[in-house]
Amino acid sequence: MATGTLHVVGVGPGSPDLLTVRAARLIEGASVVAYFCREGRKGHARTIAETYITEGTHELRLVYPFTTEIAVEDPDYQRGIQAFYDRSAQQLAGMLKQGQDVVVLCEGEPFLYGSAMYLFDRLKEQFATSVVPGIAAMNGCWSQVQLPMTHGDDVLCVIPATLPEADLTRWLQQADAAVIMKIGRNMSKVRNALVQSGRMSDARYVERGTQPDSFSCPFEECGETAPYFSLVLVPGRKGVR
Amino acid sequence: MATGTLHVVGVGPGSPDLLTVRAARLIEGASVVAYFCREGRKGHARTIAETYITEGTHELRLVYPFTTEIAVEDPDYQRGIQAFYDRSAQQLAGMLKQGQDVVVLCEGEPFLYGSAMYLFDRLKEQFATSVVPGIAAMNGCWSQVQLPMTHGDDVLCVIPATLPEADLTRWLQQADAAVIMKIGRNMSKVRNALVQSGRMSDARYVERGTQPDSFSCPFEECGETAPYFSLVLVPGRKGVR
Ligand SMILES: C[S@@+](CC[C@H](N)C(=O)[O-])C[C@H]1O[C@@H](n2cnc3c(N)ncnc32)[C@H](O)[C@@H]1O
Ligand SMILES: C[S@@+](CC[C@H](N)C(=O)[O-])C[C@H]1O[C@@H](n2cnc3c(N)ncnc32)[C@H](O)[C@@H]1O
Repeated sequence: MATGTLHVVGVGPGSPDLLTVRAARLIEGASVVAYFCREGRKGHARTIAETYITEGTHELRLVYPFTTEIAVEDPDYQRGIQAFYDRSAQQLAGMLKQGQDVVVLCEGEPFLYGSAMYLFDRLKEQFATSVVPGIAAMNGCWSQVQLPMTHGDDVLCVIPATLPEADLTRWLQQADAAVIMKIGRNMSKVRNALVQSGRMSDARYVERGTQPDSFSCPFEECGETAPYFSLVLVPGRKGVR
Repeated sequence: MATGTLHVVGVGPGSPDLLTVRAARLIEGASVVAYFCREGRKGHARTIAETYITEGTHELRLVYPFTTEIAVEDPDYQRGIQAFYDRSAQQLAGMLKQGQDVVVLCEGEPFLYGSAMYLFDRLKEQFATSVVPGIAAMNGCWSQVQLPMTHGDDVLCVIPATLPEADLTRWLQQADAAVIMKIGRNMSKVRNALVQSGRMSDARYVERGTQPDSFSCPFEECGETAPYFSLVLVPGRKGVR
């Protein structure tokens, strides 16, 4: 019996009409759709793709093992999350071996910090795979706030706010254009790094970009806290090339 | 009379099913579609969007003034291209003032080195605007060759090959993951920078990603020349966070 194909599908930043035509068709035609979610929650990627999931599609929920937040630096987190990805990959492997195609939904663009990569990495040797790109969160955010980011020979740096403050500062000093991802609990580090690098006055904060409850303001006007789905945009120079 | 809206619409890297649902609908419903092209050529963004352009849509070709290639450093190029963008913006302004909506097609993601930005920059104060994100060329390329790029707290640098060799080398040394854009005539500079930064063995070359005549190989196996539509991918580390 032929094994199934694993499709890793980017669903974009939030608005249902920002999926690609290819992603929409694949999801509509899927017999199995899998996605990560938290206990008792719908799953963010699932919510974004909702319009395209048809009746009778089997949904495979991959439920994160942590209910309270645990620091990523904690060795328990590393062990727990690795074991969870292993288990999830095994579940998918079971279906793929039975000849089922499986569509894994992924927020934004899968290969840009997407957790579906951890399933892809574990299954790619054994099964046929396809990867469907999605609109990255940053693209959705800068389009929504209409902030042109990189002209000419600007270098764009995409920087996770999980880095130490000194690293954030150094990257912000060097970059022409910059995006800071994964703000969440790193808000005060990000603020300090923006000040120290001299990039504060240009920085724009965007929360839940392209979603109905989206919010954006100059970073200078931000409060002390930020949700998980937020990022910061620092546009580049405006040279024409 | 109300003025029209300027829609800047990303059409993605090449495959017609990699436009977003929003972009496809906007183009299908457009009465005026505008795009840059070279004399006697169809226009690359226009070719990508072809399936969605309906009969009766008015097409506004914005024809580049240069027939032979001219170096971007040449002051004549700078003057010529600025004047061309000014003229093009005036043409669009004429239609917008008459109450026409205009859809400007842009390869990939508009705000990532897209030339439609130069029209947006000139018209945004005067007219209502909307910006529709597109799948960036890099996303299309790394999905096609199935190369996961950034895990955990990797920093991604997007680097134009038009920079001096020493700058390319420095960026490649510092970046976790890197994308080098605008390869074209900069092939030998890119090769030297990859060697000097020690990133050569990981570098992957992708030409015309997601298009029917697409080609990819390890950079080490590349020839001396590359077309305009090519880029280089250097994946990041594989840490899990
Ligand atoms: C694990 S990463 C996934 C990134 C995603 N794969 C992408 O293409 O951008 C999660 C981070 O993406 C950003 N993000 C995702 N969706 C967002 C949205 N709609 N608005 C703002 N930021 C978002 C936030 O910085 C968040 O912490
Ligand atoms: C002026 S920039 C436009 C970039 C585009 N707005 C984007 O989102 O990536 C042109 C460069 O994009 C890259 N590019 C565009 N389409 C491509 C494709 N299908 N395959 C490989 N590279 C591509 C090449 O590096 C090219 O020199």
